Amino acid sequence: MHILVLAPDAYYQNWKNAFEKYGKAHQLYFDLEEGLAIAEKIDVLLLWKHPQGFLNRFKNAQVFYSMGAGVDHILSDPSYDFQTPVCRVIDPYMADDMGNFLLMAVLNYHRRMLEIQANERQKNWDNTTLQNIPVRIGVMGMGHLGQAIAEKLHALKFPVVGYSNTAKTELEYRCYGAANMNQFLQEVNVIILLLPATPSTQGLLNREFFEKCHPGTYIINVARGPLVVIEDLIESVDQGQLSGALLDVFPEEPLPKTSPLWTHPKIQVTPHIASITAPETAASQIFKNLEGFTLGNPLNYQVDLSKGY
Amino acid sequence: MHILVLAPDAYYQNWKNAFEKYGKAHQLYFDLEEGLAIAEKIDVLLLWKHPQGFLNRFKNAQVFYSMGAGVDHILSDPSYDFQTPVCRVIDPYMADDMGNFLLMAVLNYHRRMLEIQANERQKNWDNTTLQNIPVRIGVMGMGHLGQAIAEKLHALKFPVVGYSNTAKTELEYRCYGAANMNQFLQEVNVIILLLPATPSTQGLLNREFFEKCHPGTYIINVARGPLVVIEDLIESVDQGQLSGALLDVFPEEPLPKTSPLWTHPKIQVTPHIASITAPETAASQIFKNLEGFTLGNPLNYQVDLSKGY
Repeated sequence: MHILVLAPDAYYQNWKNAFEKYGKAHQLYFDLEEGLAIAEKIDVLLLWKHPQGFLNRFKNAQVFYSMGAGVDHILSDPSYDFQTPVCRVIDPYMADDMGNFLLMAVLNYHRRMLEIQANERQKNWDNTTLQNIPVRIGVMGMGHLGQAIAEKLHALKFPVVGYSNTAKTELEYRCYGAANMNQFLQEVNVIILLLPATPSTQGLLNREFFEKCHPGTYIINVARGPLVVIEDLIESVDQGQLSGALLDVFPEEPLPKTSPLWTHPKIQVTPHIASITAPETAASQIFKNLEGFTLGNPLNYQVDLSKGY
Repeated sequence: MHILVLAPDAYYQNWKNAFEKYGKAHQLYFDLEEGLAIAEKIDVLLLWKHPQGFLNRFKNAQVFYSMGAGVDHILSDPSYDFQTPVCRVIDPYMADDMGNFLLMAVLNYHRRMLEIQANERQKNWDNTTLQNIPVRIGVMGMGHLGQAIAEKLHALKFPVVGYSNTAKTELEYRCYGAANMNQFLQEVNVIILLLPATPSTQGLLNREFFEKCHPGTYIINVARGPLVVIEDLIESVDQGQLSGALLDVFPEEPLPKTSPLWTHPKIQVTPHIASITAPETAASQIFKNLEGFTLGNPLNYQVDLSKGY
């Protein structure tokens, strides 16, 4: 096959090595101009935050393949036809990696680590006023990653409740559907956001949403920046309706130096590191999938275009 | 029974309530002078960091009962006769609480949280240079708490190795005995200290010990301060033989303001909060044990005086 890889320069070093290792049998291209020059020959595009507006130039492409778990960079591209199959990477290490990050975030909140560190800076030995914060954790988005973290938290005896488009009943903890969001919000005081970025989730966490939360709720966003309205989040934290937040993803990345989030005492900023897809694992999975496809098998890890994830 | 409770003032409010609730059937005293005045009538002493030197005045005491998991405050009291049985509290919530704290400490190190926070303070968006630190965790002290945290880490797929006085073979991970400490140290790069404070563990983690560690080893002490020689620890971190430490316990507590630990960039100080025994749980267990004892049953949670824990 002829495969064109389009991703930001920062990604190339490790990814290129991995693609060349696992994609030996194929003709690989890593340059948009070069790809466009032979556009009709390209069978597959491997995409990560690619330049928008060119997908419809590849008339014979059989798959648009995301190099990560998210596919919003493909589905939001105005040149995408909503016909060509879209695949994404389901990296088993990513679930562990993201799960560990989320566990760390929950534990740091539960054990008041930011306040303990503030005391440390002032050489203040205080072990009587900082009681553990009782946490009841709500996971919004119960796909592969959401279920993995919910299970970890459940195994550690933390109360966990899930939320997804459709209610799930086969789990060891409650999982509400979209119709019962208010009930979900009343049961939790920590919200882990793992929803996909779709038109219906854009700006979902706005002032109105925060007002429905339990007072003192803590927000952790490791999904996609546009899910949260940043101005409303800051206002709700400052008014005390929310107790704080950890944000790993932002509407604009890198987060601009001018953003008030960087210095907000109750909002922690991490630079989109909750989970980084491992190139080796991803490349191996992608080429295995594509090889099955060329042998006539159905594609694995394919996105349901009607749902958008 | 006549029961004398001796503990620092800071403990009293919650503990007194719990003892009065679960110890209704007994005569409780909370004052050393008052207790000494009727010393020969006292059957049981409940002790936590009590004033040293008075235990031999209670000639008819049948149990010295520690209000926590540690008993070093009793065994190191020069007035203790090494005859009277010593009991301690095995709080099931304590294992969860301590386990969560240790998990948090390991994850913060694994995910380089201190460095990420330093970047955050400088508004530095860097998600390419801070790779996860691969951790191979060694748990020194494989009693109730040690096995609980080792199992949590093992379940989360972290490599775990145990170390205890005698090797254990019935576990899902290796557990070396004292004879194989060097081999244990070569297999790990994070050490969780959960050893009891005894004459043979005092100062165990000194320069010689650190030199046997894998270069870059990280130390987490939630056991007892005197296990670690602080000057040697600082020197080994500064020389790069150790990558850092999190210390929750110290030879002198509260940690003096003059200690260089407070401001060391690679050593994190927390104020003895890894696990705090819950008074309700402890009181309930203590009085249940004592009631069985008065009925002629053997004492539970008794310390093996030949081992010192």
